[in-house]
Amino acid sequence: MSDQNPVFIPGPTNIPERLLSAMHVQTRDHRAPDFVSTFAPVLEGTKKVFGSTNGKIITFPASGTGGWEASVTNTLSPGDTVLVARYGMFSHRWIDLCQRHGLDVQIIECAWGSGAPAEKFEAVLSADKDHKIKAVLVTHNETATGVRSDIAGVRKAMDAASHPAMLFVDCVSSLASMEFRFDGWGVDIAVSGSQKGFMLATGMAILCVSPKALDAMATATLPRTFFDFRDMMAANASGGFPYTPPLQLIYGMGESLKMLFEEGLENVYARHFRLAEGVRRAVQAWGLKLVAQSPELYSDTVSAIYVPEGFDSNALTEHAFDAYGVSFGIGLGEMNGKAFRIGHLGSLTDVMVLSGLATIEMAMADLDYPVQLGSGVTAAQEYFRSTHATAAKAAA
Amino acid sequence: MSDQNPVFIPGPTNIPERLLSAMHVQTRDHRAPDFVSTFAPVLEGTKKVFGSTNGKIITFPASGTGGWEASVTNTLSPGDTVLVARYGMFSHRWIDLCQRHGLDVQIIECAWGSGAPAEKFEAVLSADKDHKIKAVLVTHNETATGVRSDIAGVRKAMDAASHPAMLFVDCVSSLASMEFRFDGWGVDIAVSGSQKGFMLATGMAILCVSPKALDAMATATLPRTFFDFRDMMAANASGGFPYTPPLQLIYGMGESLKMLFEEGLENVYARHFRLAEGVRRAVQAWGLKLVAQSPELYSDTVSAIYVPEGFDSNALTEHAFDAYGVSFGIGLGEMNGKAFRIGHLGSLTDVMVLSGLATIEMAMADLDYPVQLGSGVTAAQEYFRSTHATAAKAAA
Amino acid sequence: MSDQNPVFIPGPTNIPERLLSAMHVQTRDHRAPDFVSTFAPVLEGTKKVFGSTNGKIITFPASGTGGWEASVTNTLSPGDTVLVARYGMFSHRWIDLCQRHGLDVQIIECAWGSGAPAEKFEAVLSADKDHKIKAVLVTHNETATGVRSDIAGVRKAMDAASHPAMLFVDCVSSLASMEFRFDGWGVDIAVSGSQKGFMLATGMAILCVSPKALDAMATATLPRTFFDFRDMMAANASGGFPYTPPLQLIYGMGESLKMLFEEGLENVYARHFRLAEGVRRAVQAWGLKLVAQSPELYSDTVSAIYVPEGFDSNALTEHAFDAYGVSFGIGLGEMNGKAFRIGHLGSLTDVMVLSGLATIEMAMADLDYPVQLGSGVTAAQEYFRSTHATAAKAAA
Amino acid sequence: MSDQNPVFIPGPTNIPERLLSAMHVQTRDHRAPDFVSTFAPVLEGTKKVFGSTNGKIITFPASGTGGWEASVTNTLSPGDTVLVARYGMFSHRWIDLCQRHGLDVQIIECAWGSGAPAEKFEAVLSADKDHKIKAVLVTHNETATGVRSDIAGVRKAMDAASHPAMLFVDCVSSLASMEFRFDGWGVDIAVSGSQKGFMLATGMAILCVSPKALDAMATATLPRTFFDFRDMMAANASGGFPYTPPLQLIYGMGESLKMLFEEGLENVYARHFRLAEGVRRAVQAWGLKLVAQSPELYSDTVSAIYVPEGFDSNALTEHAFDAYGVSFGIGLGEMNGKAFRIGHLGSLTDVMVLSGLATIEMAMADLDYPVQLGSGVTAAQEYFRSTHATAAKAAA
Repeated sequence: MSDQNPVFIPGPTNIPERLLSAMHVQTRDHRAPDFVSTFAPVLEGTKKVFGSTNGKIITFPASGTGGWEASVTNTLSPGDTVLVARYGMFSHRWIDLCQRHGLDVQIIECAWGSGAPAEKFEAVLSADKDHKIKAVLVTHNETATGVRSDIAGVRKAMDAASHPAMLFVDCVSSLASMEFRFDGWGVDIAVSGSQKGFMLATGMAILCVSPKALDAMATATLPRTFFDFRDMMAANASGGFPYTPPLQLIYGMGESLKMLFEEGLENVYARHFRLAEGVRRAVQAWGLKLVAQSPELYSDTVSAIYVPEGFDSNALTEHAFDAYGVSFGIGLGEMNGKAFRIGHLGSLTDVMVLSGLATIEMAMADLDYPVQLGSGVTAAQEYFRSTHATAAKAAA
Repeated sequence: MSDQNPVFIPGPTNIPERLLSAMHVQTRDHRAPDFVSTFAPVLEGTKKVFGSTNGKIITFPASGTGGWEASVTNTLSPGDTVLVARYGMFSHRWIDLCQRHGLDVQIIECAWGSGAPAEKFEAVLSADKDHKIKAVLVTHNETATGVRSDIAGVRKAMDAASHPAMLFVDCVSSLASMEFRFDGWGVDIAVSGSQKGFMLATGMAILCVSPKALDAMATATLPRTFFDFRDMMAANASGGFPYTPPLQLIYGMGESLKMLFEEGLENVYARHFRLAEGVRRAVQAWGLKLVAQSPELYSDTVSAIYVPEGFDSNALTEHAFDAYGVSFGIGLGEMNGKAFRIGHLGSLTDVMVLSGLATIEMAMADLDYPVQLGSGVTAAQEYFRSTHATAAKAAA
Repeated sequence: MSDQNPVFIPGPTNIPERLLSAMHVQTRDHRAPDFVSTFAPVLEGTKKVFGSTNGKIITFPASGTGGWEASVTNTLSPGDTVLVARYGMFSHRWIDLCQRHGLDVQIIECAWGSGAPAEKFEAVLSADKDHKIKAVLVTHNETATGVRSDIAGVRKAMDAASHPAMLFVDCVSSLASMEFRFDGWGVDIAVSGSQKGFMLATGMAILCVSPKALDAMATATLPRTFFDFRDMMAANASGGFPYTPPLQLIYGMGESLKMLFEEGLENVYARHFRLAEGVRRAVQAWGLKLVAQSPELYSDTVSAIYVPEGFDSNALTEHAFDAYGVSFGIGLGEMNGKAFRIGHLGSLTDVMVLSGLATIEMAMADLDYPVQLGSGVTAAQEYFRSTHATAAKAAA
Repeated sequence: MSDQNPVFIPGPTNIPERLLSAMHVQTRDHRAPDFVSTFAPVLEGTKKVFGSTNGKIITFPASGTGGWEASVTNTLSPGDTVLVARYGMFSHRWIDLCQRHGLDVQIIECAWGSGAPAEKFEAVLSADKDHKIKAVLVTHNETATGVRSDIAGVRKAMDAASHPAMLFVDCVSSLASMEFRFDGWGVDIAVSGSQKGFMLATGMAILCVSPKALDAMATATLPRTFFDFRDMMAANASGGFPYTPPLQLIYGMGESLKMLFEEGLENVYARHFRLAEGVRRAVQAWGLKLVAQSPELYSDTVSAIYVPEGFDSNALTEHAFDAYGVSFGIGLGEMNGKAFRIGHLGSLTDVMVLSGLATIEMAMADLDYPVQLGSGVTAAQEYFRSTHATAAKAAA
């Protein structure tokens, strides 16, 4: 029966029945005239979720990693310089991808638990008088540490330095769960996926691309075919796809967008904040510490939590799975063994969150953590109670 | 999102994805030769769940109420006497059905919260020298009060009185969740349904019928057609159905039986006991009282819980639904307003149960119940922790 | 792979993916306030399909046979007289049901292949000066013979005889496929099911009941509980059900009604006529004969077709199933061995019908029928071609 | 209703209900210990379908195009020479991909409708004394022309030239439908996808890679990250994935393999031959010509058919879709306007094929093709009849 428990990993997320059914569709001819009537509204709706009117939505049947690859191969050339700060596993991996593709990656090393260092970006960009830096790459929500970076701040720093570099943002684990303002923040490429805030199966990389980034394609010489923006845009223009489209996910996206708009994006963000805050109250009650260094960095989709000195976070997540059949996120990279993660995004309610908190508490007690059984749940209950009126309204 | 929360009503129960998919099947020709190869094993497997080797399994596309009706119309005649004790809503309704069908119902009134009164049965049956009483009707698990009656005890009483009456048992909300011994307890007709322990959609009445009850058909003159045992058995014998069969539920039953046997019936019963005991620990921690009068009567599938004097249980369940999107059972009949019910049967884990307890606690706190927030959850956590080793084994 | 072929039985019918998904829903609390918002529109929409504004829709978790039983037990008393014509298997079974329930059934025997004998009804009713006949029972579409009876004609006969008997109509295999006018024809109870024109799983009996029939409940003494109209109406009035409702079928009905109204009832009827006519052209091309005696009796949902002298229709349907994996209807009752049936109702297109015709042709050729391979398909193609403009419009 | 018709495009193919349900699964934690128990057997089973024991199965959440890209970026370096024959749209596209990735593509132009020119390959390879050619790329089944090439012949040519080049084969539209012998033919990389013979949703590129091709990774300098074999193999080795895996497709593959093995690969191939031969008999009866130049080139998964001089194949497929709601493949590239295609692969029966033939016949008649209505269907019926005994056995 344990497969009936929700997962508390930071994606892929629990899939609502409604979306499973939306993806449960028979093959249709993607070359038939009516495919466009399904696909076009999906592109339009997705743009709204990115907070853009000028951007171009481009999707690939791939994971978010594929989206990263598409962002650089379509706009950059071998030897181009990009600026990235490393403060977690996913910023690390994007750096690695750039290096493998022959880019010159200028790395600012930051402590895990911190966010994008706007001031340091400004300093580096100001010093780059020749504008060798072609793009700044930022992970909006660092899934490994539960840190949300201030993209508006990064944009401000770039503007202060009067630097023409493009701004690429990984919003895989934030889009459709936390506010994103593609146009407002001056983002040039934002990369997301189907399996987090959109609550779908894994398999679709979802990008929003600015006119400036589209212009960059003209000179970009990194090789690409599967991930080529031009092929995709040309085919999309007539309602088609350059190769077989992931039909089931496209139908799923259509229904996911309906769900998000029915709830209202503002309400979706408010719900995620509320669930996250409930988890944070529990962490405080346990006497544990978040990896995220300060409240303005707290992510509303995932919390990374240090285990006390002398404990192994891997043993904790393994035990929670073995004894109670519930999955939590393990500590990744530097955090391996030191922190575990609670994913609280997508199709989730306060009631479901409480079951996750209750479970990890039992697991901690089983392993003799200095944590009082029930304390975290009670703290979260108290918080959820005090806010349920809002929640009830939002869910309506 | 609140439709993602589990329900805590005592049926219909949460349907596991695996069973939803098993029922998601296209039409097949039920007159085609291969229908029998699907249907026959379902009948065989169901018999095992009843704990019978000699009984005959008979199913109808109906609810449990239809099963009750079938039990009396196939075996009794207008004016026949039956003996029933009333100790809850479901025993009450069966009595009502008998009366509407022109039976002479000899009723033993019992307090709600008590179980089948074996001693009183024995007294009445001993006094019935002419054997006018044709059947004793017992509700195994009274869903309105959370009381499990001792069917073995009833059988013993009947034997002690050397009375030839048939024994009919309603096990709608106990079968496939708590032990049932059709042969061992000398049951003549047991009535259940698809939507409780079998974790399926509503729509199939499931009966097990003894040879003695089958013999009674010969003289029974109550009219029946849709619920006629003979038509059904004759058609079933050649793998057919006297009318269009509920194909989707038959496939669902096949998969449900697989799930039950994979977990092992003993483990299924142990899981239900464990979940129920967790709930009972919470009730105790809250300082509340179960409707069931004594521990040997405690049901492992549903707990009916008195609210404190001066509170309205309907306001509580309504508030839990409105504020948190979780359904609990209301108080039925005499218990309306006085007690609420937590269903803990079917596709359910300790983790899910904790979310239910956490929710009703919040609701009670919201309504100023003299209950300490977190107390029930903590008590259940403590119990589940202490027993998880067993549980983990059972779930494997 | 043969389970991917459509079925050509006259119900249960092929279920469109959309309806399978609509029934693929998790348990909800049927006592929760929002159940009514789902259920009430289903009752309203269903009434439209019956062509009624004054009727009351009553559903039971049962098959059509249960609907028949409900129609008589709620309105009649033991010994009451009903008038029925027997002209096929389903009129025969309804007669049998009435007899088992102690009614005095006045039977008019008709040839199988004929329809309801309005003139004979008029004669009998005119002769019944004492108005002993309480109800006239008519099978609208006799599934065994492929005959549609003229209900308006029966009503006219009843009116001509100035007889106050109620008019009960079995429209299980016609509703939502052929025009039905409950109010227009003065029907008192019409009985249908979920698994034919509604294209759903089996499991819901669907009735429409006139005010006059509702009044008859007051004096009706046949016993009923599961099928009691009053219990159902009382519960429905507050959005509830007297026992656990078949939630999945109720959601399915909601979506089925959407599909029917999106296509438009007139277009649904036109499509069924067109598919039926294609089949009839094929039958003519084969040189075979329909069981239905004359064109005005031809059913648009099922065609019963005589096999040539010396051939066994059972061997034909068995061979079609074994060799090609396609199910056709066998000959029932008097027609067993003499006729086979092609069901052409529900979720079906001309393209699918052609595959059925092609299959039965192959089967006939295999068994040395004096039928020219391809002749029926070609005749149907010719007809479908000449009408596709209309069809394309209707399907849009 | 027209969405109930099967599609006759050469992929994505009709998805059997069983596989739709297999993909209808809730999120599980892919980092949890039990993911490996699901994934490992999928890799093993897939290897059998490729006809390999020494190959390594590598999958990506992508389409077949992604598989092509992976094959070259993991084994080759910019400037490397590859040898390819162009004889259709898909060989053309692979060439284009190679060129975009900076390879030196030596192209042998062939007539569309011909297959891989083994003799010409031998000549070129024999002349390449310096072994500059690193790989020979062959499209096994050219979906645009309905041509199956002789891979064994290509291998023989390579061996005759004693050339060490690797052999890459695109088997996207042949694998799991027509025999493939990875080991037997000395293939180094074979590229397929989930949406053709495996009858699943689009979204998984499936490759089989020889030890020799794996060795080539060491020196290959084309950039790759998303499609990197090493990352994938390293993660797979411990049951994991380098990024979020397409869980639903992995479950789907598990069930697809079960279906294929239950039917038996030999029977699957025989069924495809039989369906294809039925189509070819129809084409002959119509007096039309296949694009494939000679019988040994005939594909068993798709037939490309020339329309008569003066007709436009696009008008034909559009009309078939508009008037009858059935999708056929359009003519691609050189064949656009000149030929249409009937896909006959995956989840398909003779009965379904007949409906496709009947439909395109009606469409041709509507557009005044010099084709006799019914002729093709009859020819196919005759063929299917004469072979059904075998088919029945295979389907059992």
